[in-house]
Amino acid sequence: MSDTTATPLLDQIARPADLKRLSDAELTQVARELRTETISAVSETGGHLGAGLGVVELTVALHAVFDTPRDKIIWDVSHQCYPHKILTERRDRIRSLRMKDGLSGFTKRSESPYDPFGAAHSSTSISAALGFAVGRDLGGVVPEGLGDAIAVIGDGAMSAGMAYEALNNAGDLKKRLIVILNDNEMSIAPPVGAMSSYLSRLYAEAPFQDFKAAAKGAVSLLPEPFREGAKRAKDMLKGMAVGGTLFENLGFSYLGPINGHDMDQLLPVLRTVRQRATGPILIHIQTQKGKGYGPAEAARDRGHATAKFNVVTGEQKKSPSNAPSYTRVFADSLLTEAAADDKICAVTAAMPDGTGLDLFAERYPSRCFDVGIAEQHGVTFCAGLAAAGMKPFCAMYSTFLQRGYDQVVHDVAIQRLPVRFAIDRAGLVGADGPTHAGAFDVTFLANLPGFVVMAAADEAELRHMVATAAAHDEGPIAFRYPRGEGRGVEMPERGTPLEIGKGRMIKEGSKVALLSFGTRLEEVEKAAEALSAKGITPTIADARFAKPLDREMILKLAEDHEALITIEEGAIGGFGSHVAQLLAEEGVFDTGLKYRSMVLPDIFIDQASPADMYAVAGMNAEQITAKVLEVLGIGNLDAQRA
Amino acid sequence: MSDTTATPLLDQIARPADLKRLSDAELTQVARELRTETISAVSETGGHLGAGLGVVELTVALHAVFDTPRDKIIWDVSHQCYPHKILTERRDRIRSLRMKDGLSGFTKRSESPYDPFGAAHSSTSISAALGFAVGRDLGGVVPEGLGDAIAVIGDGAMSAGMAYEALNNAGDLKKRLIVILNDNEMSIAPPVGAMSSYLSRLYAEAPFQDFKAAAKGAVSLLPEPFREGAKRAKDMLKGMAVGGTLFENLGFSYLGPINGHDMDQLLPVLRTVRQRATGPILIHIQTQKGKGYGPAEAARDRGHATAKFNVVTGEQKKSPSNAPSYTRVFADSLLTEAAADDKICAVTAAMPDGTGLDLFAERYPSRCFDVGIAEQHGVTFCAGLAAAGMKPFCAMYSTFLQRGYDQVVHDVAIQRLPVRFAIDRAGLVGADGPTHAGAFDVTFLANLPGFVVMAAADEAELRHMVATAAAHDEGPIAFRYPRGEGRGVEMPERGTPLEIGKGRMIKEGSKVALLSFGTRLEEVEKAAEALSAKGITPTIADARFAKPLDREMILKLAEDHEALITIEEGAIGGFGSHVAQLLAEEGVFDTGLKYRSMVLPDIFIDQASPADMYAVAGMNAEQITAKVLEVLGIGNLDAQRA
Repeated sequence: MSDTTATPLLDQIARPADLKRLSDAELTQVARELRTETISAVSETGGHLGAGLGVVELTVALHAVFDTPRDKIIWDVSHQCYPHKILTERRDRIRSLRMKDGLSGFTKRSESPYDPFGAAHSSTSISAALGFAVGRDLGGVVPEGLGDAIAVIGDGAMSAGMAYEALNNAGDLKKRLIVILNDNEMSIAPPVGAMSSYLSRLYAEAPFQDFKAAAKGAVSLLPEPFREGAKRAKDMLKGMAVGGTLFENLGFSYLGPINGHDMDQLLPVLRTVRQRATGPILIHIQTQKGKGYGPAEAARDRGHATAKFNVVTGEQKKSPSNAPSYTRVFADSLLTEAAADDKICAVTAAMPDGTGLDLFAERYPSRCFDVGIAEQHGVTFCAGLAAAGMKPFCAMYSTFLQRGYDQVVHDVAIQRLPVRFAIDRAGLVGADGPTHAGAFDVTFLANLPGFVVMAAADEAELRHMVATAAAHDEGPIAFRYPRGEGRGVEMPERGTPLEIGKGRMIKEGSKVALLSFGTRLEEVEKAAEALSAKGITPTIADARFAKPLDREMILKLAEDHEALITIEEGAIGGFGSHVAQLLAEEGVFDTGLKYRSMVLPDIFIDQASPADMYAVAGMNAEQITAKVLEVLGIGNLDAQRA
Repeated sequence: MSDTTATPLLDQIARPADLKRLSDAELTQVARELRTETISAVSETGGHLGAGLGVVELTVALHAVFDTPRDKIIWDVSHQCYPHKILTERRDRIRSLRMKDGLSGFTKRSESPYDPFGAAHSSTSISAALGFAVGRDLGGVVPEGLGDAIAVIGDGAMSAGMAYEALNNAGDLKKRLIVILNDNEMSIAPPVGAMSSYLSRLYAEAPFQDFKAAAKGAVSLLPEPFREGAKRAKDMLKGMAVGGTLFENLGFSYLGPINGHDMDQLLPVLRTVRQRATGPILIHIQTQKGKGYGPAEAARDRGHATAKFNVVTGEQKKSPSNAPSYTRVFADSLLTEAAADDKICAVTAAMPDGTGLDLFAERYPSRCFDVGIAEQHGVTFCAGLAAAGMKPFCAMYSTFLQRGYDQVVHDVAIQRLPVRFAIDRAGLVGADGPTHAGAFDVTFLANLPGFVVMAAADEAELRHMVATAAAHDEGPIAFRYPRGEGRGVEMPERGTPLEIGKGRMIKEGSKVALLSFGTRLEEVEKAAEALSAKGITPTIADARFAKPLDREMILKLAEDHEALITIEEGAIGGFGSHVAQLLAEEGVFDTGLKYRSMVLPDIFIDQASPADMYAVAGMNAEQITAKVLEVLGIGNLDAQRA
């Protein structure tokens, strides 16, 4: 019996060019070994497993047929890029995936010339690929050269309007451009929307094991005479135009569906396309997320994202949690409110599990809506629901809400419609890195007239804020909370609506006031303890609201203290800027106040643990302590004593 | 000969319900008179003419067949809503359109119960209508009741991904929902993209004067037995499924195309749909923008937007301009730079005329791209072009750039790609009102690491900033400029790249420093003159950059003056907030500085002239003067003297 974890052929592949000398049978073997290596690596690092396993054959086939990095492969979302990273000179670092100073879990331009375009948010690949295709034809110059542009995009990502906008533009421009639709009938959750049903019908009408009918446009792509494998390719291509009208209507040639795990289908089709494509072409491949690894295939999410695990059993090594996650607290609190008010409904953009709305969908299926990866529509859909007398909760990650910003401004804020924004993953998020950081929401929401913007300091506060949002019918309201577990504080059975625009005093002190907005409060309290050892007793307050500000409390803090320092898990322009504006307009600075605003620094912070990322940001307890000492001019206290 | 401007039948229509008692022939007559009234009104007010004229018959037919305001008509963009406003109890105020304290040029919830959802940006109507349809079925309660939800959306608006996202979701939810696709083969400019060609083909394959073939799904909508007009409707419906697969693939029943100017087609089709529709249905109507008014029909933009005009000749009453518009200066400057650098290219999202890129498209057609109403794609397409070694200028209005915010963050900023953002319509824009205000861009761009953010103080500065952007390859850069004419300053032949992060001193003074960012500089200079009459000589500086700030200049201003006041045409969180952060971190506030930041107030400002809007905002010369006096504590100087 052979060692199933050995990778003898893969071991000989230092770079994609090495694949060129292999036979099709050997490439199939490389794919097998690449799957083994991917499973092995992710078992040690955790991360996105299912998506990568679904494109192992495609990854090998693309690098074997095309000439990377001159040809540009653009992985949509790019959490499926681990096999690609292994093949492209990064195998030696693959066990550092998603770790501090390690490989990113996504494609990243600064990491490798084989990553021509970074991604992490969905549905950007066709737009980027079109940019490369047009740039190539206009004489753009880059070190690696400019060849083919190939976007690989999942069926879930096709629910986003951005993908449609790109298809619409590409179909019109008629440049040579290759889009591979990787149809695994899954995004993170099962995909939703009419497009998904449509793709299923395409497959049902022309499953790849039974090609039929004529190919129309596609057949003109075929080379004559055919070489090895081409007979089979021709048979396939013949059947491919069946039902393909939606893409053809948008100006694309359509090939498919083909079996994305069968190298004998993939290789000849890609070779044919490479030789003969003239305009935009869409290749529809059918794959299975988690393919080839039993525990992933069996999981409900097909092994989408995983902790470290035992390769043999698939058992994940999760550390026991001491407190419920903020996501779970939000979900439970919303259920409580919804039980009391049948006008409460909820909207997610393809993140039922991530936002905790899966629980809501289970209990109240008719009041829960997964709109697909469609934040623009999702926000305005909520605005429509609110205009129809409902109380919609729009549950999105901070970073993805950026997708619906114009709709927040134009459809919600200007009309003062009472949409409730539940903003998860606020602040720095850890292993997903800078693309998933929730850094900007307070800045881009608190500048909107009529908005109420809150941040929860702990999980009990979050519960109160869900109740506050449920009760607030006067206009839009948002509350943000981080990824991860709460502090383990005592939880009320049900939240109590907070008074809008009122903060709370945590601890009365003197000299310096620390005004926290969000979950940095815990670090602030630790800093206060450290400071008390030095004879300083800071006042601590939790602002609760970035908008409207608790003017009375803040002006009192300014009046009673020599220094006032704000702390928030967000970029410049948010809470601290609103406080500064208040202080300035009230003339507080006229006579002097040691005011400082601790915000996220002006850099995108690479992945690490959240704690490590906040250390980079300069916002942990020690750094808050140091800031206080510096502001009070007693930074050298210990040094003086020594 | 009858008086062609008389409106005897329309005069009897006080509200939509009055249409119910009219015969089809009388409704046709009402439509004729409504067209006359619309032309007459817009000739006095100026505004959007062509779009309204294209939907006169549809407007009458919808209000005659449906039961508004219980049924919700949601006009996409809604610049075609003037006939709707005339019919819905606002005829007496229609000659105040787009004026201060007058009717909005768009639908507006606060204006009328017949406007269930406001709009101005494109492609939001299907999402909103779906919200109403779902809210209705969930038992939502609003004063007017909840009946049918009807979105009226143009073919241009269908190029936006948001419309696709909404179709995808609606086709999946299967709620009764009516979408009317108003296909006039025009948006503001001729529409672009593959969808537009597709719609043209639909019409070519089944023009409404020659229906053929079978209707499939659509036929099931038909009532049996038919009443008046239904025989004709059946003939039409029979032919309608031809080629309609794109919408049908997304889960909609498809009816069309039908002649949107023929009441004998519109009325029976709408009646049939009202009686029988069960799920989502798309009615494809063919109309002509500017229909029925010769000068509009003959115009290149079909009378899209017009100044006041002479009804007989169509001649517009435009006041002569003294200086070129900022838009024109941008366009000319870009041509100059592009002549010297063949890597410069330009992208517009369906606004070639509005952004001035029509000139670029004429001179460099292969380097200019109109991506359709598709800001998300447009921004990432630019990122792709930049990654391919090109120098893309992404020319968008401030308010529409909000649509591409996530792409600016995720695809441009995080990757530090040198996309050049030319941001037109910065600040308050006048007659288009709050939905078009460019209020938020500095706030939502200057918080992004690595971004350079500039604002032009006058048209010569704009020319320099275009050159600066062209020369800046290190990362993303943005420059903003307002709607309207420049100051008439002397123009350099070609711009000179500015030093990044360096402002300029305009005038040395004492006591108070006025630090302007953008075109308020003119008002600041006027204020300084007024102040000099009172013996105060303010220092004036033009910041040029909100990011990176000119730290040296700003700290010097703070050091040398008792008071420092920033002025910008933007909301809180932008330039002034960055200045405050700098001053705070440098300890300038510790010892006292009279710092104030003049930003747009925390309200959405209704339409008026830009000057009137800035007066509401408190940012004209008099108000700046008053601010200085107040800050210096000599606000009562005149009063004291008196």
